[in-house]
Amino acid sequence: MTGTDAPETDALTDLFGLLAYAELVAFFNLSGDAALASSLEDKAALGEMAVAEFGHFRALHGALTRMGAVPETAMRPFVAPLDAFHARTAPADWLEGLVKAYVGDGIAADFYRAVAELLEPQAKALVLEVMADTGHADFVITRVRAAIEADPPLAGRLALWARRLVGEALAQAHRVVAERPALARLVAGDEAGGQGDIGRMFARITDAHDRRLAALSL
Amino acid sequence: MTGTDAPETDALTDLFGLLAYAELVAFFNLSGDAALASSLEDKAALGEMAVAEFGHFRALHGALTRMGAVPETAMRPFVAPLDAFHARTAPADWLEGLVKAYVGDGIAADFYRAVAELLEPQAKALVLEVMADTGHADFVITRVRAAIEADPPLAGRLALWARRLVGEALAQAHRVVAERPALARLVAGDEAGGQGDIGRMFARITDAHDRRLAALSL
Repeated sequence: MTGTDAPETDALTDLFGLLAYAELVAFFNLSGDAALASSLEDKAALGEMAVAEFGHFRALHGALTRMGAVPETAMRPFVAPLDAFHARTAPADWLEGLVKAYVGDGIAADFYRAVAELLEPQAKALVLEVMADTGHADFVITRVRAAIEADPPLAGRLALWARRLVGEALAQAHRVVAERPALARLVAGDEAGGQGDIGRMFARITDAHDRRLAALSL
Repeated sequence: MTGTDAPETDALTDLFGLLAYAELVAFFNLSGDAALASSLEDKAALGEMAVAEFGHFRALHGALTRMGAVPETAMRPFVAPLDAFHARTAPADWLEGLVKAYVGDGIAADFYRAVAELLEPQAKALVLEVMADTGHADFVITRVRAAIEADPPLAGRLALWARRLVGEALAQAHRVVAERPALARLVAGDEAGGQGDIGRMFARITDAHDRRLAALSL
């Protein structure tokens, strides 16, 4: 795809379908984390973040409908890879859940910011809106750092966990890229969209992931 | 309490604290039901209802703050009885979860409507607002009736389940009434607020419960 061509409708439907299902699952995971939080304050704070994710889901659902797509049909190809990712990375406790949400949000935000640059203004604005920070990152950083200060050996376990998360995420992303060529061309941001370009984008995302782990003291 | 006296601030703080925690837990339960729904359409529909419950929680949280109360302190006395109710009535499957949300919403709505009549206009408006139907009842009635048509023996199991739910709810309500005398006087709606008046209110709520079960074909 060249810079002047609008991305194919199919690719945009794929992108919004992927984003919509990811936001819906983020809502479920965050509300589950909220239910497990030990204090009422944390329950309320995580609940607010969950509701913000649902607002993003709603915005994408509406955009798909306006584009003439059936939102559920657009989401369906991404149910299996996203569910597989979540099934393979079920958190063992509340802290692992927080780290997962933080790492997942971060990777998703990098990915969507990269893709947003390639979109027409309206689609770009929507992608940036649904990626707006819901305040989750600061909440997680504060809680995880405090937990590690109280119990330093935690850092090793959580660092391994974060490494496993990014490995599983990349495995599923490769699966999606292989199955959805139009989406792969869109996200690679060039005419070829070869596996090499995709690989370079994943490498940039992995670099950013490492910086985020440092912020968590991992 | 006579009709002309405003209810004690303590009683109102109790009432809003109870309502707030109940709405927060309803949000957790509904988003859990949404995650378990088999179709993407049902996931989205139940997610919308969960988010509406969170909006009610937010309204009550704000009202408590404006009254000069600390919302978490106001909620705390009701955490144990509500958690005990939910722990003793964990749904075995998605349908039991739907019936539980429907029965719980219905009992709560009857209770709050009865109490709302005793409140000053502003508090009354808030209580009625947070009890506004979120569209959940129709959703549940449609799904449960369809499930029973497809598998008639289900009706017996779900009817027993609904009976158990109301029994557990009344047990916890009696516990709250015994521990929070100001709230008990507020909800009994008279000077004495004796156990007999409370008992009559619970009996009216149980009658309404039976009518709701008929709507579910139970």
